[in-house]
Amino acid sequence: MSVDLSTIPTPAALVDTARLQRNIQTMQARVASLGARLRPHVKTAKCIPVARLQQAAGAAGITVSTLKEAEQFFSAGFDDILYAVCITPNKLDLALGLLQRGCQLKVVVDSLAGAQAVADKSRAAGIAIPTLIEIDTDGHRAGVKPEAEVLIHIGRALHDGGARIYGVMTHAGASYGESTTAGLQRIAEQERSLCVRAAERLRAAGLPCPEVSVGSTPTALSARTLEGVTEVRAGVYVFHDLVMCNVGVCSPQDVALSVLATVIGHQVEKGWVLTDAGWMAMSRDRGTQAQAVDWGYGAVCSSDGTLMSEWLMSGANQEHGIVSRRDGALPDDLVQRFPIGSQLRLLPNHACATAAQFGEYRVLADGADVQVWERFNGW
Amino acid sequence: MSVDLSTIPTPAALVDTARLQRNIQTMQARVASLGARLRPHVKTAKCIPVARLQQAAGAAGITVSTLKEAEQFFSAGFDDILYAVCITPNKLDLALGLLQRGCQLKVVVDSLAGAQAVADKSRAAGIAIPTLIEIDTDGHRAGVKPEAEVLIHIGRALHDGGARIYGVMTHAGASYGESTTAGLQRIAEQERSLCVRAAERLRAAGLPCPEVSVGSTPTALSARTLEGVTEVRAGVYVFHDLVMCNVGVCSPQDVALSVLATVIGHQVEKGWVLTDAGWMAMSRDRGTQAQAVDWGYGAVCSSDGTLMSEWLMSGANQEHGIVSRRDGALPDDLVQRFPIGSQLRLLPNHACATAAQFGEYRVLADGADVQVWERFNGW
Repeated sequence: MSVDLSTIPTPAALVDTARLQRNIQTMQARVASLGARLRPHVKTAKCIPVARLQQAAGAAGITVSTLKEAEQFFSAGFDDILYAVCITPNKLDLALGLLQRGCQLKVVVDSLAGAQAVADKSRAAGIAIPTLIEIDTDGHRAGVKPEAEVLIHIGRALHDGGARIYGVMTHAGASYGESTTAGLQRIAEQERSLCVRAAERLRAAGLPCPEVSVGSTPTALSARTLEGVTEVRAGVYVFHDLVMCNVGVCSPQDVALSVLATVIGHQVEKGWVLTDAGWMAMSRDRGTQAQAVDWGYGAVCSSDGTLMSEWLMSGANQEHGIVSRRDGALPDDLVQRFPIGSQLRLLPNHACATAAQFGEYRVLADGADVQVWERFNGW
Repeated sequence: MSVDLSTIPTPAALVDTARLQRNIQTMQARVASLGARLRPHVKTAKCIPVARLQQAAGAAGITVSTLKEAEQFFSAGFDDILYAVCITPNKLDLALGLLQRGCQLKVVVDSLAGAQAVADKSRAAGIAIPTLIEIDTDGHRAGVKPEAEVLIHIGRALHDGGARIYGVMTHAGASYGESTTAGLQRIAEQERSLCVRAAERLRAAGLPCPEVSVGSTPTALSARTLEGVTEVRAGVYVFHDLVMCNVGVCSPQDVALSVLATVIGHQVEKGWVLTDAGWMAMSRDRGTQAQAVDWGYGAVCSSDGTLMSEWLMSGANQEHGIVSRRDGALPDDLVQRFPIGSQLRLLPNHACATAAQFGEYRVLADGADVQVWERFNGW
C-alpha cells in the first residue's frame, strides 16, 4: 500500500480494497460451504460499490436497517431486500411503494399488532406483503420466543389476513459478548436451532414458512452447521473492526476501514500526540471498553497501515484526538516521531459507527489512484 | 407545542424554536452584560438558520471546528470566522483560499512548527494570516501554558515571520467535569485569568495581542467577570443537553433538540419498549455515564415534550432503542401505554454528537407548520 495519502484532506475514511475483498470472499465461501445463501447487511458500508462486490462474490439479496437504504439500493439495481427492523404503521406506505415499483422487499414483525397492520395494509392494497416473523433466540433485543403461543397467532394474522409469510428471522446480537471458540459455536448453534424450531412450529400449525434467516458476523463465522437455515445475514465482516478482533473472528490485519488523521500538536509532558481525528471522525463508540483489549477510541497505525500496538487513541474531543502510549510512558522522541503534519491511520472500535461519520470513502488499491466511493446516511 | 408530529418520518431531529431562542437570548445577554462580544461556536448545529438567529441576537462573528464549516458559513454570508482547531500545513491552502476570497478567517496554532508554517505561508502568499495562539488553561487538551517560554517564541515566529497575531484563545473543556456553582466559577476564573496572563506576557515582550478569546458553555454561563477578555466562544448552549443539565447550567426544559422516535415493539417480561431510534440516531455518546444522573442514551419525553423522568433510554443498537424504567420496574400497562406506532421524544446526552447523526432538523414553532432546516456534516 504505497499510495501517497498526503493530499487527502483529513480526517478521511480509508478503505483497503485488498482486505475488503478478502473479507467478502471469506464470508461468502464459509456460508456457501454450510449450504446457505448469504444476504449481506449493507448497513455497515451503506455504499453501492461495496454491495456490488458482495453481489459479484455470490451474495443473494441484501439486508437493510432503514427504508432509506432500501430506496437507495433499489434505485441502484438491488431488488431483493430484507428490511430487518420491525416495521411500524407509519412506514408501511413507504414499504408498499417499493413493492409496487417491483422491489422484492421483505418486512419484519414481532407482535400481533404489527402483523395485523401489515395484513390490513396488504388487503387494502391488494399486495400480499412478504413478511418475516422475528424470533428472539438470545434475549438481547427484539423478537418473540420460539415457544411462545403468540408466534402462531402472528403467523395466522399474517397468513389469514392477506400478507405472505416469507419466513422467520433472528439475529444473535449477544454473540458480540463472546470471545472464545466454544462460546461462539454455542451461540451460533442456539441461534440456528431456536430459529429452526420456530419455523417448525409454524409449519406444524399448518402455516407456510419457506425461509429461515439467521445471522451475525460472529455466528456466521463460527457455526458448525446451518441445517434448516436457508439464508445468513451478516454485516460488519465487510470491514471488520476492533470489537470483532476482541470477539476473536478477525485480526487487526483484516480491518479494511481506517481513519486517516493528521498530527496537529503535542503535549510532551503527558506523552500526547494530538490529531485532527476526534470523536466526530471515530464516533463515540467505545465498544472495546468492556472487552479483553480496550483500544480507547481506536488502534494506531503508521500511514502505511502498520499497527503500532503499543499506542492507542486514548481520548477524543469533537475534532481533537489524543494518541498516547498504552503503558503511559513519556517518549523522549514524541515530537520527532510524530511531527506536526505527519499522518496516522486509526482502526475503529466499531466499523458501522465510524463509517457513519463520513459521506465518502477514500479507496486504496495497490497500483491504482485513490478512488472516492460515496456512502449515505440518515433516514 | 401542539403540532402534529405523526407524519414526520422517524427517527427525526426536532428543534423547539421557543427553547432555541431563549437559549440564544440568555447567552447573548449574559456575555454582553460582562462586557465581551459573543462568537458562537456553530459546530453544534452546523445550520445556517440557527447561526442567523445567533447573529440577529447580537453575535459578533462565529467559531468553527472544521474548514468545511468555514466554507459553508462563508458561502452563506458569514465573513468573520475563527477556526478553533490548530491548523496543519496540509490545511493552509484551504485557509488561504478563504482569506483571498474576502473571508476574515482566523487560524490557531500552539507550536513553533505550526507558527512557522503559518508565517511561511503568509510570506509566500503576501497575506498576513490572522492567527491566535492557543493557551492551555486547564490541561484538558491542546495549547501552550501561559508561563511557557515557547509562547513568546511562537509570538515572534508569527509576528516577525509575516503572519499577524490576532490574539490568544483558550477553551476550558475541563468545565464539563464540574457540577457546582463554586467549581464552575473557579474554572471560569482560571480560564479568564490564565488567558489574560498569556496576552499580557506577549504584550510585555513587545508583541501585539489585541484579542483575548475564551469560552465554553459552562464557563460562559458561570463567569463573574470577564475583565481583559474581548470575546467569548460557546457552542452547545444553543441546544443544551443532558450533560449540561448535570453540569448545572440548564434544565431538561431548556433542551431544544430531541429525537422523535416511533415505538416498534415490546419485551414485556423485561419492561422494555423498543423504538426506531437506536445509537445511529442518538449517537454513541454516553456523556452522562460518569455524571450525577446517568440518562443512558437519552431522557424520555412524551410526544408533546413532557419529560417522563422515571424512564430512560437504557440501551441501543444501530436502529433499535430500548426504553425502560430507571428503577427496573415492570409496568403492567407497558403495551397499552406505549402502543406500537406511538411516538416519543428523546433528549440527547450530547447535542453536538446527536445532531451530527442527522442531515436536517424538523423545526417546531407554536402555531406554525413544521419547517425543515438543513445541516451539514463531514469535512
